[in-house]
Amino acid sequence: MQQGKFITLEGSEGAGKSTNLAYIQELLQAQGLEVVTTREPGGTEIGEKIRALLLDPENTAMHQDTELLLMFAARAQHIFEKIQPALQRGAWVISDRFTDASYAYQGAARGMGFARIEPIENWVQQGFAPDLTLVFDLPIAIGMQRVKSRGAVVDRFEQEQKTFFENVRNAYLERAEAAPQRYAVVDAAQSLVVVQSQIRQQLASKLGLIC
Amino acid sequence: MQQGKFITLEGSEGAGKSTNLAYIQELLQAQGLEVVTTREPGGTEIGEKIRALLLDPENTAMHQDTELLLMFAARAQHIFEKIQPALQRGAWVISDRFTDASYAYQGAARGMGFARIEPIENWVQQGFAPDLTLVFDLPIAIGMQRVKSRGAVVDRFEQEQKTFFENVRNAYLERAEAAPQRYAVVDAAQSLVVVQSQIRQQLASKLGLIC
Repeated sequence: MQQGKFITLEGSEGAGKSTNLAYIQELLQAQGLEVVTTREPGGTEIGEKIRALLLDPENTAMHQDTELLLMFAARAQHIFEKIQPALQRGAWVISDRFTDASYAYQGAARGMGFARIEPIENWVQQGFAPDLTLVFDLPIAIGMQRVKSRGAVVDRFEQEQKTFFENVRNAYLERAEAAPQRYAVVDAAQSLVVVQSQIRQQLASKLGLIC
Repeated sequence: MQQGKFITLEGSEGAGKSTNLAYIQELLQAQGLEVVTTREPGGTEIGEKIRALLLDPENTAMHQDTELLLMFAARAQHIFEKIQPALQRGAWVISDRFTDASYAYQGAARGMGFARIEPIENWVQQGFAPDLTLVFDLPIAIGMQRVKSRGAVVDRFEQEQKTFFENVRNAYLERAEAAPQRYAVVDAAQSLVVVQSQIRQQLASKLGLIC
Protein backbone atom coordinates (compact mmCIF):
# COMPACT_ATOMS: atom_id res chain seq x y z
CA MET A 1 0.00 0.00 0.00
CA GLN A 2 1.41 3.35 -1.06
CA GLN A 3 1.65 5.94 1.73
CA GLY A 4 -0.79 8.87 1.43
CA LYS A 5 0.13 12.52 1.06
CA PHE A 6 -0.16 15.19 3.73
CA ILE A 7 -1.52 18.59 2.64
CA THR A 8 -1.78 21.57 4.99
CA LEU A 9 -3.71 24.81 4.46
CA GLU A 10 -2.39 28.01 5.97
CA GLY A 11 -3.32 31.67 5.84
CA SER A 12 -4.65 34.63 7.76
CA GLU A 13 -8.17 34.79 9.15
CA GLY A 14 -10.84 34.93 6.44
CA ALA A 15 -8.59 33.59 3.70
CA GLY A 16 -11.04 30.83 2.85
CA LYS A 17 -9.26 27.80 4.30
CA SER A 18 -12.46 26.01 5.36
CA THR A 19 -14.22 26.41 2.00
CA ASN A 20 -11.15 25.29 0.09
CA LEU A 21 -10.46 22.39 2.40
CA ALA A 22 -13.89 20.99 1.52
CA TYR A 23 -13.15 21.56 -2.17
CA ILE A 24 -9.80 19.73 -2.04
CA GLN A 25 -11.45 16.89 -0.15
CA GLU A 26 -13.99 16.49 -2.99
CA LEU A 27 -11.27 16.62 -5.64
CA LEU A 28 -9.28 13.87 -3.93
CA GLN A 29 -12.31 11.69 -3.24
CA ALA A 30 -13.27 11.98 -6.91
CA GLN A 31 -9.85 10.38 -7.62
CA GLY A 32 -10.88 7.42 -5.47
CA LEU A 33 -8.59 8.40 -2.59
CA GLU A 34 -9.45 7.97 1.07
CA VAL A 35 -9.32 11.45 2.63
CA VAL A 36 -8.98 12.42 6.29
CA THR A 37 -9.69 16.08 7.09
CA THR A 38 -8.53 17.62 10.32
CA ARG A 39 -7.49 20.90 11.93
CA GLU A 40 -5.06 22.51 14.35
CA PRO A 41 -4.88 23.21 17.14
CA GLY A 42 -6.95 20.13 17.89
CA GLY A 43 -7.63 17.21 15.60
CA THR A 44 -7.87 14.62 18.38
CA GLU A 45 -9.94 14.37 21.56
CA ILE A 46 -6.98 15.42 23.73
CA GLY A 47 -5.95 18.04 21.19
CA GLU A 48 -9.41 19.61 21.17
CA LYS A 49 -9.21 19.97 24.96
CA ILE A 50 -5.87 21.73 24.54
CA ARG A 51 -7.40 23.89 21.79
CA ALA A 52 -10.09 25.02 24.21
CA LEU A 53 -7.40 26.23 26.64
CA LEU A 54 -5.57 28.06 23.85
CA LEU A 55 -8.59 29.85 22.44
CA ASP A 56 -10.30 30.74 25.73
CA PRO A 57 -10.41 34.59 25.87
CA GLU A 58 -10.12 34.32 29.67
CA ASN A 59 -6.56 32.95 29.48
CA THR A 60 -5.00 36.37 28.83
CA ALA A 61 -2.15 35.73 31.29
CA MET A 62 -0.78 32.87 29.18
CA HIS A 63 2.99 33.16 28.67
CA GLN A 64 4.18 32.81 25.07
CA ASP A 65 6.34 29.77 25.93
CA THR A 66 3.28 28.09 27.48
CA GLU A 67 1.27 28.83 24.35
CA LEU A 68 3.93 27.34 22.08
CA LEU A 69 4.31 24.18 24.18
CA LEU A 70 0.54 23.67 24.27
CA MET A 71 0.41 24.05 20.48
CA PHE A 72 3.10 21.40 20.07
CA ALA A 73 1.55 19.12 22.73
CA ALA A 74 -1.63 19.08 20.69
CA ARG A 75 0.41 18.65 17.50
CA ALA A 76 2.36 15.66 18.86
CA GLN A 77 -0.92 13.93 19.73
CA HIS A 78 -2.32 14.85 16.31
CA ILE A 79 0.65 13.41 14.44
CA PHE A 80 0.97 10.15 16.37
CA GLU A 81 -2.71 9.38 16.93
CA LYS A 82 -4.24 10.56 13.67
CA ILE A 83 -2.03 11.87 10.85
CA GLN A 84 0.72 9.23 10.64
CA PRO A 85 -1.62 6.22 11.03
CA ALA A 86 -3.84 7.61 8.25
CA LEU A 87 -0.90 8.23 5.90
CA GLN A 88 0.45 4.75 6.61
CA ARG A 89 -2.78 3.07 5.54
CA GLY A 90 -2.69 5.08 2.30
CA ALA A 91 -5.17 7.86 3.14
CA TRP A 92 -4.51 11.47 2.17
CA VAL A 93 -4.69 13.92 5.06
CA ILE A 94 -5.71 17.59 4.73
CA SER A 95 -5.19 19.76 7.80
CA ASP A 96 -6.55 23.27 8.39
CA ARG A 97 -3.27 24.71 9.79
CA PHE A 98 -0.15 22.88 10.98
CA THR A 99 3.38 23.82 12.10
CA ASP A 100 3.70 26.82 9.79
CA ALA A 101 0.98 28.46 11.89
CA SER A 102 3.25 28.28 14.96
CA TYR A 103 5.96 30.09 13.03
CA ALA A 104 3.52 32.72 11.75
CA TYR A 105 1.54 33.32 14.96
CA GLN A 106 3.93 32.60 17.82
CA GLY A 107 7.19 33.12 15.92
CA ALA A 108 6.45 36.25 13.90
CA ALA A 109 3.31 37.90 15.29
CA ARG A 110 4.07 37.33 18.99
CA GLY A 111 7.73 38.07 18.32
CA MET A 112 9.28 34.83 19.63
CA GLY A 113 11.35 34.50 16.48
CA PHE A 114 11.66 31.47 14.21
CA ALA A 115 14.86 30.33 15.98
CA ARG A 116 12.96 29.80 19.23
CA ILE A 117 10.46 27.49 17.53
CA GLU A 118 12.77 25.31 15.47
CA PRO A 119 14.13 23.23 18.41
CA ILE A 120 10.60 22.32 19.51
CA GLU A 121 9.53 21.47 15.96
CA ASN A 122 12.59 19.25 15.56
CA TRP A 123 12.04 17.60 18.94
CA VAL A 124 8.41 16.71 18.14
CA GLN A 125 8.45 16.06 14.42
CA GLN A 126 11.97 14.73 13.84
CA GLY A 127 11.76 15.64 10.17
CA PHE A 128 8.08 14.88 9.60
CA ALA A 129 6.55 17.61 7.39
CA PRO A 130 3.67 18.14 4.93
CA ASP A 131 4.09 17.10 1.29
CA LEU A 132 2.34 20.31 0.21
CA THR A 133 1.42 23.48 2.10
CA LEU A 134 -1.04 25.83 0.41
CA VAL A 135 -0.74 29.38 1.72
CA PHE A 136 -3.98 31.29 1.13
CA ASP A 137 -2.80 34.84 0.87
CA LEU A 138 -4.85 38.03 0.84
CA PRO A 139 -4.62 41.62 2.09
CA ILE A 140 -5.35 41.87 5.82
CA ALA A 141 -8.21 44.36 5.39
CA ILE A 142 -10.15 41.93 3.18
CA GLY A 143 -9.58 39.03 5.60
CA MET A 144 -10.74 41.01 8.62
CA GLN A 145 -13.86 42.18 6.79
CA ARG A 146 -14.72 38.56 5.90
CA VAL A 147 -14.27 37.46 9.54
CA LYS A 148 -16.52 40.28 10.80
CA SER A 149 -19.22 39.53 8.25
CA ARG A 150 -19.43 35.96 9.66
CA GLY A 151 -20.80 37.52 12.86
CA ALA A 152 -19.00 34.82 14.85
CA VAL A 153 -17.78 35.23 18.42
CA VAL A 154 -14.25 36.66 18.32
CA ASP A 155 -11.68 34.34 19.94
CA ARG A 156 -8.40 35.24 21.67
CA PHE A 157 -6.39 35.25 18.42
CA GLU A 158 -8.94 37.20 16.38
CA GLN A 159 -8.88 40.00 18.97
CA GLU A 160 -5.32 40.86 17.93
CA GLN A 161 -4.45 44.07 16.10
CA LYS A 162 -3.77 44.72 12.43
CA THR A 163 0.05 44.73 12.76
CA PHE A 164 -0.22 41.27 14.29
CA PHE A 165 -1.95 39.95 11.17
CA GLU A 166 0.48 41.76 8.84
CA ASN A 167 3.26 39.86 10.61
CA VAL A 168 1.37 36.58 10.23
CA ARG A 169 0.94 37.20 6.53
CA ASN A 170 4.56 38.16 5.94
CA ALA A 171 5.81 35.12 7.87
CA TYR A 172 3.80 32.76 5.66
CA LEU A 173 5.10 34.45 2.51
CA GLU A 174 8.67 34.33 3.79
CA ARG A 175 8.45 30.62 4.59
CA ALA A 176 6.83 29.86 1.22
CA GLU A 177 9.57 31.72 -0.62
CA ALA A 178 12.31 29.87 1.28
CA ALA A 179 11.05 26.39 0.31
CA PRO A 180 9.15 26.67 -3.00
CA GLN A 181 9.22 22.91 -3.56
CA ARG A 182 6.90 22.35 -0.57
CA TYR A 183 4.80 25.54 -0.55
CA ALA A 184 2.36 27.09 -3.00
CA VAL A 185 0.94 30.57 -2.48
CA VAL A 186 -2.68 30.91 -3.59
CA ASP A 187 -4.04 34.41 -4.29
CA ALA A 188 -7.11 34.20 -2.05
CA ALA A 189 -8.36 37.68 -2.97
CA GLN A 190 -9.52 36.29 -6.32
CA SER A 191 -12.97 34.89 -7.02
CA LEU A 192 -13.69 31.36 -5.85
CA VAL A 193 -13.49 29.93 -9.36
CA VAL A 194 -10.02 31.42 -9.86
CA VAL A 195 -8.87 30.23 -6.42
CA GLN A 196 -10.08 26.71 -7.23
CA SER A 197 -8.21 26.77 -10.53
CA GLN A 198 -5.00 27.77 -8.70
CA ILE A 199 -5.50 24.85 -6.27
CA ARG A 200 -5.91 22.32 -9.11
CA GLN A 201 -2.77 23.67 -10.79
CA GLN A 202 -0.76 23.27 -7.60
CA LEU A 203 -2.03 19.74 -6.95
CA ALA A 204 -0.90 18.88 -10.48
CA SER A 205 2.50 20.55 -10.40
CA LYS A 206 3.48 19.69 -6.81
CA LEU A 207 1.89 16.26 -6.31
CA GLY A 208 1.30 15.09 -9.89
CA LEU A 209 -2.44 14.84 -9.33
CA ILE A 210 -4.51 15.80 -12.39
CA CYS A 211 -8.05 16.63 -11.15
CA MET B 1 15.95 43.15 48.56
CA GLN B 2 17.67 39.77 48.61
CA GLN B 3 16.22 37.19 46.23
CA GLY B 4 14.37 34.30 47.91
CA LYS B 5 15.30 30.63 47.67
CA PHE B 6 13.48 27.97 45.69
CA ILE B 7 12.97 24.58 47.38
CA THR B 8 11.36 21.61 45.64
CA LEU B 9 10.06 18.39 47.21
CA GLU B 10 10.21 15.19 45.24
CA GLY B 11 9.48 11.55 45.90
CA SER B 12 7.24 8.62 45.14
CA GLU B 13 3.58 8.51 46.09
CA GLY B 14 3.00 8.35 49.83
CA ALA B 15 6.46 9.68 50.74
CA GLY B 16 4.97 12.46 52.87
CA LYS B 17 5.60 15.44 50.62
CA SER B 18 2.41 17.29 51.63
CA THR B 19 2.95 16.90 55.38
CA ASN B 20 6.56 17.98 55.14
CA LEU B 21 5.80 20.86 52.83
CA ALA B 22 3.56 22.33 55.54
CA TYR B 23 6.31 21.73 58.10
CA ILE B 24 8.97 23.52 56.04
CA GLN B 25 6.55 26.39 55.47
CA GLU B 26 6.17 26.80 59.24
CA LEU B 27 9.93 26.65 59.79
CA LEU B 28 10.57 29.37 57.22
CA GLN B 29 7.74 31.58 58.42
CA ALA B 30 9.10 31.31 61.97
CA GLN B 31 12.30 32.85 60.53
CA GLY B 32 10.24 35.84 59.39
CA LEU B 33 10.40 34.83 55.72
CA GLU B 34 7.56 35.28 53.25
CA VAL B 35 6.73 31.81 51.93
CA VAL B 36 4.85 30.84 48.77
CA THR B 37 3.78 27.20 48.54
CA THR B 38 2.81 25.67 45.25
CA ARG B 39 2.67 22.38 43.35
CA GLU B 40 3.20 20.74 39.99
CA PRO B 41 1.71 20.07 37.62
CA GLY B 42 -0.38 23.18 38.21
CA GLY B 43 0.43 26.11 40.45
CA THR B 44 -1.36 28.69 38.29
CA GLU B 45 -4.89 28.97 36.95
CA ILE B 46 -3.76 27.89 33.47
CA GLY B 47 -1.47 25.25 34.95
CA GLU B 48 -4.28 23.71 36.98
CA LYS B 49 -6.35 23.37 33.79
CA ILE B 50 -3.40 21.56 32.18
CA ARG B 51 -3.07 19.42 35.32
CA ALA B 52 -6.68 18.33 34.93
CA LEU B 53 -5.91 17.08 31.40
CA LEU B 54 -2.82 15.23 32.60
CA LEU B 55 -4.46 13.47 35.53
CA ASP B 56 -7.78 12.61 33.86
CA PRO B 57 -8.00 8.79 33.84
CA GLU B 58 -10.00 9.07 30.56
CA ASN B 59 -6.99 10.39 28.62
CA THR B 60 -5.39 6.96 28.26
CA ALA B 61 -4.52 7.57 24.60
CA MET B 62 -2.13 10.39 25.49
CA HIS B 63 1.23 10.05 23.69
CA GLN B 64 4.30 10.39 25.92
CA ASP B 65 5.59 13.39 23.94
CA THR B 66 2.23 15.12 24.46
CA GLU B 67 2.41 14.39 28.18
CA LEU B 68 5.91 15.84 28.47
CA LEU B 69 5.03 18.98 26.52
CA LEU B 70 1.93 19.55 28.67
CA MET B 71 4.04 19.17 31.80
CA PHE B 72 6.48 21.78 30.55
CA ALA B 73 3.71 24.07 29.28
CA ALA B 74 2.30 24.16 32.82
CA ARG B 75 5.84 24.56 34.19
CA ALA B 76 6.66 27.53 31.95
CA GLN B 77 3.52 29.30 33.16
CA HIS B 78 4.35 28.37 36.74
CA ILE B 79 7.88 29.78 36.53
CA PHE B 80 7.06 33.03 34.76
CA GLU B 81 3.75 33.86 36.45
CA LYS B 82 4.40 32.69 39.99
CA ILE B 83 7.83 31.35 41.00
CA GLN B 84 10.20 33.93 39.55
CA PRO B 85 8.13 36.99 40.60
CA ALA B 86 7.93 35.61 44.17
CA LEU B 87 11.69 34.95 44.34
CA GLN B 88 12.40 38.41 42.96
CA ARG B 89 10.42 40.10 45.72
CA GLY B 90 12.36 38.09 48.32
CA ALA B 91 9.81 35.35 49.06
CA TRP B 92 10.90 31.72 49.48
CA VAL B 93 9.04 29.28 47.26
CA ILE B 94 8.35 25.63 48.13
CA SER B 95 6.96 23.46 45.35
CA ASP B 96 5.47 19.99 45.68
CA ARG B 97 7.28 18.51 42.63
CA PHE B 98 9.15 20.29 39.84
CA THR B 99 11.34 19.33 36.87
CA ASP B 100 12.90 16.31 38.56
CA ALA B 101 9.46 14.71 38.44
CA SER B 102 9.51 14.88 34.64
CA TYR B 103 12.81 13.03 34.62
CA ALA B 104 11.55 10.44 37.10
CA TYR B 105 8.06 9.86 35.67
CA GLN B 106 8.34 10.56 31.94
CA GLY B 107 12.10 10.01 31.59
CA ALA B 108 12.62 6.87 33.64
CA ALA B 109 9.25 5.28 34.37
CA ARG B 110 7.70 5.87 30.92
CA GLY B 111 11.03 5.07 29.33
CA MET B 112 11.57 8.27 27.33
CA GLY B 113 15.10 8.57 28.69
CA PHE B 114 16.72 11.59 30.33
CA ALA B 115 18.30 12.69 27.03
CA ARG B 116 14.88 13.26 25.49
CA ILE B 117 13.87 15.60 28.34
CA GLU B 118 16.98 17.75 28.64
CA PRO B 119 16.38 19.81 25.47
CA ILE B 120 12.89 20.77 26.62
CA GLU B 121 14.09 21.63 30.13
CA ASN B 122 16.84 23.81 28.65
CA TRP B 123 14.44 25.47 26.23
CA VAL B 124 11.98 26.40 28.99
CA GLN B 125 14.20 27.02 31.99
CA GLN B 126 17.41 28.32 30.39
CA GLY B 127 19.38 27.39 33.50
CA PHE B 128 16.71 28.19 36.09
CA ALA B 129 16.74 25.46 38.81
CA PRO B 130 15.84 24.96 42.49
CA ASP B 131 18.32 25.99 45.19
CA LEU B 132 17.49 22.81 47.08
CA THR B 133 15.61 19.65 46.11
CA LEU B 134 14.57 17.32 48.93
CA VAL B 135 14.00 13.77 47.72
CA PHE B 136 11.69 11.90 50.10
CA ASP B 137 12.76 8.32 49.63
CA LEU B 138 11.10 5.16 50.85
CA PRO B 139 10.51 1.58 49.73
CA ILE B 140 7.72 1.37 47.15
CA ALA B 141 5.62 -1.09 49.18
CA ILE B 142 5.38 1.34 52.10
CA GLY B 143 4.46 4.24 49.83
CA MET B 144 1.72 2.30 48.07
CA GLN B 145 0.26 1.16 51.37
CA ARG B 146 0.13 4.77 52.58
CA VAL B 147 -1.63 5.88 49.38
CA LYS B 148 -4.20 3.10 49.68
CA SER B 149 -4.90 3.90 53.33
CA ARG B 150 -5.88 7.43 52.30
CA GLY B 151 -8.82 5.90 50.45
CA ALA B 152 -8.52 8.59 47.78
CA VAL B 153 -9.61 8.17 44.18
CA VAL B 154 -6.69 6.72 42.20
CA ASP B 155 -5.56 9.02 39.36
CA ARG B 156 -3.91 8.12 36.05
CA PHE B 157 -0.39 8.04 37.51
CA GLU B 158 -1.28 6.14 40.67
CA GLN B 159 -2.78 3.33 38.54
CA GLU B 160 0.69 2.43 37.34
CA GLN B 161 2.43 -0.78 38.31
CA LYS B 162 5.12 -1.45 40.88
CA THR B 163 8.01 -1.51 38.38
CA PHE B 164 6.94 1.94 37.28
CA PHE B 165 7.38 3.26 40.82
CA GLU B 166 10.69 1.45 41.27
CA ASN B 167 11.91 3.29 38.20
CA VAL B 168 10.64 6.59 39.61
CA ARG B 169 12.46 5.97 42.88
CA ASN B 170 15.73 4.96 41.22
CA ALA B 171 15.65 7.99 38.92
CA TYR B 172 15.33 10.37 41.87
CA LEU B 173 18.22 8.66 43.68
CA GLU B 174 20.36 8.73 40.54
CA ARG B 175 19.77 12.45 40.02
CA ALA B 176 20.43 13.21 43.68
CA GLU B 177 23.70 11.32 43.57
CA ALA B 178 24.82 13.15 40.43
CA ALA B 179 24.43 16.63 41.96
CA PRO B 180 24.80 16.36 45.75
CA GLN B 181 25.23 20.13 46.16
CA ARG B 182 21.62 20.72 45.08
CA TYR B 183 19.88 17.53 46.30
CA ALA B 184 19.29 16.01 49.71
CA VAL B 185 17.81 12.55 50.14
CA VAL B 186 15.52 12.25 53.17
CA ASP B 187 14.79 8.77 54.54
CA ALA B 188 11.00 9.01 54.52
CA ALA B 189 10.48 5.55 56.02
CA GLN B 190 11.53 6.94 59.43
CA SER B 191 9.12 8.37 62.00
CA LEU B 192 7.90 11.92 61.46
CA VAL B 193 10.15 13.34 64.19
CA VAL B 194 13.23 11.81 62.55
CA VAL B 195 12.16 12.99 59.09
CA GLN B 196 11.69 16.53 60.43
CA SER B 197 15.13 16.42 62.01
CA GLN B 198 16.66 15.41 58.66
CA ILE B 199 14.86 18.32 56.97
CA ARG B 200 16.22 20.85 59.48
CA GLN B 201 19.74 19.47 59.02
CA GLN B 202 19.50 19.86 55.24
CA LEU B 203 18.14 23.41 55.45
CA ALA B 204 21.12 24.24 57.66
CA SER B 205 23.83 22.52 55.62
CA LYS B 206 22.53 23.39 52.13
CA LEU B 207 20.99 26.85 52.66
CA GLY B 208 22.62 28.02 55.90
CA LEU B 209 19.25 28.29 57.62
CA ILE B 210 19.34 27.37 61.34
CA CYS B 211 15.76 26.58 62.37
